[in-house]
Amino acid sequence: MAINPQTSALIMIDMQQGFIDERSSLWIAGAQASVPSCAQALEAARNVGMPIWHVRRSYSFDGSDVEPVRYQQWLQGDKPLCAEGPWPQSLEAPSELVALDSERLLVKPRFSAFFETDLHEQLQQEGITHVILIGTTTPNCIRSTGYDAISYNYDVTVLSDATSSRSEAVQAANIEDMATIGMTIMTAEEFAQALQG
Amino acid sequence: MAINPQTSALIMIDMQQGFIDERSSLWIAGAQASVPSCAQALEAARNVGMPIWHVRRSYSFDGSDVEPVRYQQWLQGDKPLCAEGPWPQSLEAPSELVALDSERLLVKPRFSAFFETDLHEQLQQEGITHVILIGTTTPNCIRSTGYDAISYNYDVTVLSDATSSRSEAVQAANIEDMATIGMTIMTAEEFAQALQG
Repeated sequence: MAINPQTSALIMIDMQQGFIDERSSLWIAGAQASVPSCAQALEAARNVGMPIWHVRRSYSFDGSDVEPVRYQQWLQGDKPLCAEGPWPQSLEAPSELVALDSERLLVKPRFSAFFETDLHEQLQQEGITHVILIGTTTPNCIRSTGYDAISYNYDVTVLSDATSSRSEAVQAANIEDMATIGMTIMTAEEFAQALQG
Repeated sequence: MAINPQTSALIMIDMQQGFIDERSSLWIAGAQASVPSCAQALEAARNVGMPIWHVRRSYSFDGSDVEPVRYQQWLQGDKPLCAEGPWPQSLEAPSELVALDSERLLVKPRFSAFFETDLHEQLQQEGITHVILIGTTTPNCIRSTGYDAISYNYDVTVLSDATSSRSEAVQAANIEDMATIGMTIMTAEEFAQALQG
């Protein structure tokens, strides 16, 4: 899959301390380890002027808009999680992944970055036909976003080492499923090389 | 998870010959074997008056609305697949799973039964708060529908033996992921017993 920087977008999902920091009850085991690969992908995209979306989960202070299936988990540990308040960094990216002023921010209420957001309209407006997904967590937000993207007829590439899961087995099984349905899988290094080539 | 037949719905997805019949290029290895469990779930729901939705994939005759990632696969084998034409049974359920006149039919254009359909509005109108998912294929349509359902705040139950995948390993990995995010997993027999209890 050739990558045209003019019609492709890099979409980074949920790389915020509420999922990366071990103190969070929504912590993802593999997320911290994927930060360097996410940073590599951001740099590669910036070098060729590819548009970048930073997608973040944000809940209300009292948790009233948390998914019911996840509310008990949200209540545990430091709070409020992924919300404004005493732990604001749960909304923030690690220093290596902070957005530049020229890059897009998108808050999403659920797993898929397309669910009840205007991401599709934004991408259409920019002429994007191919989305490259990085971030966390592979079985939930990355995969849901990928399926919505292919449903909207986008080409989809997932960077395997710039996404993360609760275990290596879960990561591998999800990557295999996404490859089977027709998403392209590559590493951040392969992505960077494809953009230089 | 208690199941209230007044506020729950059984949703059967893509149990049509285009996915069940081995002649189809979109054939799912495990789908035929799940027919008896699907029939058991339908009977159990009918016995208590639980509303049932039969969800089907339907493409246009020329394949122009097939997902781009799937178009080459769609072109293979008997055609047109899941479309009106010389192989109309590719749209039809096996005899054990045919809808009754009183049951709902829903055509969906993509993986999730919620994607660009009015399923959410229909369920809301009927006061449904809990969806029970059966059908095929677990990693694609069942899972996408399940994630959309929890995103809309429904309780979600997936019947493990009334859903199917290209392999046992894929089935098991997807069931585990759905359990982890908070969907309830049970067999068709357990579902039938829960409704009698």
